[in-house]
Amino acid sequence: MTKNMPTPERIFDTMTAFQRTEALGAAVELDLFTSIAALGEDRATAKAVSEKVGAGEKGVRVLCDFLTVLELLSKKDGRYALAPDAALFLDRRSPAYLGTAARFLMSPGLKDAFRDVTGVVRRGGTLLEGEGTVEPNNPIWVEFARGMAPMVKPAAEFMAELAGEVSKVLDVAAGHGLFGIHVAKRSPNAQIHAVDWPAVLEVARENAESAGVSDRLHLIPGSAFDIDLGGGYDLVLLTNFFHHFDKPTCVSLMKKVHRALAPGGRALTLEFVPNDDRVTPPQPAAFAFIMLNTTRSGDAYTFSEYQEMFREAGFAKSEIHQPPGLPQSVIQSVR
Amino acid sequence: MTKNMPTPERIFDTMTAFQRTEALGAAVELDLFTSIAALGEDRATAKAVSEKVGAGEKGVRVLCDFLTVLELLSKKDGRYALAPDAALFLDRRSPAYLGTAARFLMSPGLKDAFRDVTGVVRRGGTLLEGEGTVEPNNPIWVEFARGMAPMVKPAAEFMAELAGEVSKVLDVAAGHGLFGIHVAKRSPNAQIHAVDWPAVLEVARENAESAGVSDRLHLIPGSAFDIDLGGGYDLVLLTNFFHHFDKPTCVSLMKKVHRALAPGGRALTLEFVPNDDRVTPPQPAAFAFIMLNTTRSGDAYTFSEYQEMFREAGFAKSEIHQPPGLPQSVIQSVR
Repeated sequence: MTKNMPTPERIFDTMTAFQRTEALGAAVELDLFTSIAALGEDRATAKAVSEKVGAGEKGVRVLCDFLTVLELLSKKDGRYALAPDAALFLDRRSPAYLGTAARFLMSPGLKDAFRDVTGVVRRGGTLLEGEGTVEPNNPIWVEFARGMAPMVKPAAEFMAELAGEVSKVLDVAAGHGLFGIHVAKRSPNAQIHAVDWPAVLEVARENAESAGVSDRLHLIPGSAFDIDLGGGYDLVLLTNFFHHFDKPTCVSLMKKVHRALAPGGRALTLEFVPNDDRVTPPQPAAFAFIMLNTTRSGDAYTFSEYQEMFREAGFAKSEIHQPPGLPQSVIQSVR
Repeated sequence: MTKNMPTPERIFDTMTAFQRTEALGAAVELDLFTSIAALGEDRATAKAVSEKVGAGEKGVRVLCDFLTVLELLSKKDGRYALAPDAALFLDRRSPAYLGTAARFLMSPGLKDAFRDVTGVVRRGGTLLEGEGTVEPNNPIWVEFARGMAPMVKPAAEFMAELAGEVSKVLDVAAGHGLFGIHVAKRSPNAQIHAVDWPAVLEVARENAESAGVSDRLHLIPGSAFDIDLGGGYDLVLLTNFFHHFDKPTCVSLMKKVHRALAPGGRALTLEFVPNDDRVTPPQPAAFAFIMLNTTRSGDAYTFSEYQEMFREAGFAKSEIHQPPGLPQSVIQSVR
C-alpha cells in the first residue's frame, strides 16, 4: 500500500463511532470528569480516580485511556487531566456544565429512532410509532426541557436582545421556557404566554420561579396546532419547532401565528438553517438526518424555503440573523 | 463567548456519534456507494440514486447529504460523488471493498456489549453472559470470519513474508483461515493445521478452496485451550487471540504453544500493541476499550507485557515488527 492510497481508517472510525457515544455517556454518568478535576493533575491516577467514582481500577483505566485517545482527557506519567472543552463543559461544578444534554441526546427514546436507518430511508421518515418524537405528550420533551436547558443561554440572550422591549409575548413549544424567560428578564413589562404539553410546562414553571419571573409566565397547555393561542401579541417565539413538520404544516402554523400577532408584531424563529446546498455548514446540514429518523416528515429547511413558507402565511418579508458561534439561526418576520 | 473559549462542538459530536455509525451501516446495506459510483458524477442526483437503490427520494437525499457532511461523499450542483476512501473501500465492485466489515463491527452481538458501559466499567469487564464474545461457538466469530476477511490481506502477506519457507504450521483461532492460507501460498510445502470452532472452520475451508490450497489445510475443531494441538510445528500463528484473555490465560496458552513447537520453531503473534503509555498510537490504544466491553478479562497488552508473558512461557526472546500502515504489530518469538 503506497502512501498516496486512501486508508480505511475513517471508515472503521465511523463503523465504531457508536462506542465513543457510549464511552462519553458512561463517563458523564460516573461523573468521571468532575472526579478527575477534583483530584487535580498530580493525583488523578487510574487508581485514585477509580476510588473516587466507586468503580474498579481496570474499567476506569481503560475508559480514561479511551477518553484520552478521543482527546477529551490528556495523560502524563499515568495521571489524567481534562482537555479545555471537557473542563468547561463536563465538570459538574462548571457553570457551563452540559453533561445533562446526554439525558436528551442519548436517551433511549432518541436512540431507538436510529435502530433501522435503512428502513427509515426506505420509508422517508421515522419508524417510531405515529408522529415519532412529535407524538402528543412524548416524555422525551421533558428530557429535552431538563437536559438541554443549560445549552440555550447564548441563543436565548441573542433572541432577547433582538426582541428588545416587548409587552405581550407568545412562546410556542416553550419546552424549558428559557427563551421566554430571557425575554422577560430583558423586558420588565413583558408578559409571557407559554404553550407546550402539561408535563413540559412544569419544567418551564420551575425555571421561571428560579429566574424570579413566574408571576409573568402564563401557561397554555396543549398543542399549538389545536388550541386557541389568544391574540394581540407583539412577539411570538418559535424555537426549534418547524423542523419537526412538513411544509404545509409549517405554513398552517405560521398562518395561525400571523393571526395572533398585533399589526407590526414580530415572529422570531430559531432554527437549524443549512445553506441551499444542504451540506453546509456541517451542524445545520447534519440536523436533517436527525429529523429524518425521529419524525414522520420533518426536515432542516433552507432560508429560501422558510421565506417562501412564511410569505405564504402572510409575512411579506423575513430576514435572517446569525448568532455568533451557534449552529442555529434566527429568522425575524414582521406582520 | 470569546473566540479563545472552548466550544461544545466536540462533545455534542461525541454524544451523537452513534448516528454516524447507523448512517454508514444503512448506506452499506442499501449499497448506496456502489449505486452512486455506477451512475457517475454527472448523473448521481438524489432522485437518480433513489431510483437505483429502490428507496424514496427524501430519505436518500437526507442520507446522502449527511454522508457529505461526514465527507464520505461530495456534492456539487445537486450531484453526489464518492470520496477517495469511499470509492476504494465502499464500492462493492472494488477489490478492496470492506463493506462486509460492517457485518462484524456493527453486528447486534457486538453492539449489545456497549449498551451499559457504566455497568461494564463498574464490573471491570463485559456484562455479556459467561465469557462474552469468547463463549464457545459464539456465532459472532462466523460474522468475523466472513466480514473481516477482506481486511486481513496486508497483515497476512506481511506475516507470510516474515514466515518464509516453513513446512508444518499451526494456525490458532484461525477464523477465516487467511493467515495460514497466505503462508501456504508463500510456502509450497507448508501443511496448515487450523484450530477454531467447527462453524468458523467451515469458512476457512471455503477460503482454502478458493485459494487452491484446501489439500494442505487440516482442520482441528475445538478450543485451543482444551484440545491436543499436536507437535513438531516450525511455525505457530496466533492472530488477534491473546487480547481476549487475562495474563495467566495467555501464559498458559503460550506454554502449550511452546511445547507444540519444534526446537528453533517460531510463534508469530498479531496483536493490537499500544505503547507503554497505553494511549498511543490511537487505534491499538482504543482497542482496549473494545476488549473491556466484549470480554470478561481481555485487554490490549503492551510489548513489555507480551515479552514478560512469553518469557514466562519459555520464550527467551521476542521481537516486534511493524507492518507499514497497519494498526497491529507482529511479535516473533523463537523456541
